[in-house]
Order: sequence, then structure tokens, then C-alpha cells
Amino acid sequence: MPTSSRDRLARTAVPVHPLIAGRWSPRALDPEAMISCAALTALLEAARWASSWGGSQPARFVVGRRGDDTFTGLVGTLTRGNRSWAPNASALILGATQTRDDEKVLVHSAFDLGQAVAQLTLQAVAEGFVAHPMGGFDAGAARVRFAVPDDFQPLVLVAIGTLADPSTMEEGLRAKETRPRSRLPLSEVAFTGTWGQPAL
Amino acid sequence: MPTSSRDRLARTAVPVHPLIAGRWSPRALDPEAMISCAALTALLEAARWASSWGGSQPARFVVGRRGDDTFTGLVGTLTRGNRSWAPNASALILGATQTRDDEKVLVHSAFDLGQAVAQLTLQAVAEGFVAHPMGGFDAGAARVRFAVPDDFQPLVLVAIGTLADPSTMEEGLRAKETRPRSRLPLSEVAFTGTWGQPAL
Repeated sequence: MPTSSRDRLARTAVPVHPLIAGRWSPRALDPEAMISCAALTALLEAARWASSWGGSQPARFVVGRRGDDTFTGLVGTLTRGNRSWAPNASALILGATQTRDDEKVLVHSAFDLGQAVAQLTLQAVAEGFVAHPMGGFDAGAARVRFAVPDDFQPLVLVAIGTLADPSTMEEGLRAKETRPRSRLPLSEVAFTGTWGQPAL
Repeated sequence: MPTSSRDRLARTAVPVHPLIAGRWSPRALDPEAMISCAALTALLEAARWASSWGGSQPARFVVGRRGDDTFTGLVGTLTRGNRSWAPNASALILGATQTRDDEKVLVHSAFDLGQAVAQLTLQAVAEGFVAHPMGGFDAGAARVRFAVPDDFQPLVLVAIGTLADPSTMEEGLRAKETRPRSRLPLSEVAFTGTWGQPAL
């Protein structure tokens, strides 16, 4: 049995929306599962309509579906650790963001890409997929392979796929897949009055 | 009548989840509306459980509810344009992110804060509120007022509130509130093969 989404739900003090509570970053992906063009479009639409600083819309994506050249090229940029599982994704999506506009440095562009990727990720959950954003890839190699312009910076590679049974994974990966999820307590994350004073 | 969420839905090639399609950044907020502690907790829980690079969790928040000192302090950091409407928010939430860990620069920290704020924003929509992330505030003043440590950078101030009737707003704000929403076409945002070649 695949690790069910329920086992991996965020443990929250009050209920949060199922899309958000059910989102996590699996590595056990079904190497046969495909993603339809319609579903992929929905993910990219979700990203496209994200908020951005002053409407600047700095986020761009390079999309590969397993079996196509773009996918193969993106796999080639993965770190060794991610190369052990991410090729089973149905799609790999490179996220890049515009860091300069003429002379001006766009300080919010990484933040805005993060907003867009979060919407893409939650839309993936809504479509019945899982999504795993990765920092572990060679951004310079991705720049060369896909002719990313100088004023854009590749920052993330997102694996989109269908959750699979982790029991067939090698032990190190399986351990990562099944260990309890954890986060800093809310008291160390949300403050009021002054820094460090818990809000809630 | 308030501008209904339906009027402001994202126009997408295929349906996206209602939370994502219905999210936008209003300025017309009800100055009497409050937010409960439970709802605020849900927003922060949604942020807390966001994905982050290697589990680094760099995002922190300073939370003010209208009427408390933190809210007043956050209003004091707003640019003049945002000060004309954002004080009607039920809560203002400053988002800061850890940019350095000892000697190391955390390159993904702004991206990760973006992911956390997107989840917070969508949870606000799920709770019946609206959320408007703002870059227009004095980050230096926020740092001083809330004793933000040197290794954290304030990047965003999010107004959370209840949608109000825009007809009572002054004309400039009303025009912003009711103009059609727009985004770059998907063909200019999502590529395959190489940069600039539409994916879909």
C-alpha cells in the first residue's frame, strides 16, 4: 500500500484546508503514471494567477513530461540524491524568476516565484498528484541547457507525480518517506509585540 | 454590494481549484470586521506547514490584530499608498525570512517565505477572508520596531480582512479594485524544449 495521504497530514492546532494539510513532498513516485495535458495546464494556470509584487509576474517555467527531451534534460541537472527518485516523476517543472529589469534588481522575485510554485503545488494536490519542490539541481547546467536568459535565475525544480508504495525503495529513501513530518512549533514562528514573543 | 469573488475569478484555460481561482488582492476591506484567534491560528498553521529547502523553515511572522500595538506599529511602516486602505485590515502579518545561517547565505529563503505566504493567503480565502500581500512598507522601520534580528529580512506585509463595498472608496482606489484582472498569457510563462517555446 502507498503511504496514504492521511498518514502524512500536517498536525495543526486547528483544522486547515485539506489541500494544505495534505500537501507533502514524497519521493515514492509511480514510474508508469502519466499526467494529462489538461492537468498540467491546470498546474501552470494556478502558478500564473499567483500574486506578485506590483503585478511584476517574474515567474517562468520549463516543463518536461517523462519521455520527452525536456524531461531528460531536466533529469540531467539533478543532484545525485534526487536522481535516485525524481526520474519517476510524471513531469518535472523548472521554476525561474526574473532577478533584474534593466538596471533594477527585483528583490521580491524569489518570493514571488515561491508564491507561484506553492499555488502550482496545491493545484497538483487538487488534481490527485503529489509535488516535490527541489533545490538540489544544477542551476547553471539548467541555464545552459534551456537558454535561460541572464536576467532570470533558475531556483527550483518541481517533481510532479503519482504517489507509489515506498516499500520497494532502497532503505535510505524509504526511511525519509515514512519518518514523521515535523515543523518548528507555532510559538517559534509567529510573534506579536516583538520578535520572539509568541503570537498565539 | 461588495465586488463579489465571482467577478474577480481568475480566467483560466481549464478549471483550477476555487481557492486559487478565487484568490485576489483587494483593497476594499471592512473596517469593523474582526478575525478570530482560531482563524488567525489556521492561517499561521498553513504557513508553518509549507515546504522549505531541506526543511530549513526560514519563515517567521509578526502578527497584529486591529486595535493592538503590533497592528499600530505595522501600520506605521506602510507606504503612503497602502496606508490609505490597509489600516482597515482585521490583521496585518509581517513576513520575514532567515537570509543567513552562520556564514552561509540561504539563497532559497525568500522563495520559501513566498511558499509559506501563499499557503497563508489561500487559508485566508478558505476561512472567508481576503489577503493582500504588500511589498510597500519600510522594512528597515519594521526591523527596528519589532527587533528583527540581523539574519532575518522582512519582505512582505500581508493585510487580512473582510471584503467590503468598493463604491465608498476614493476614485483611484476604486478604479484599482474594479479593473479587470490580467496576467501574461500562459505561452509567455511556461516553456518546453527551450526558453520561449510555449509548453502548451
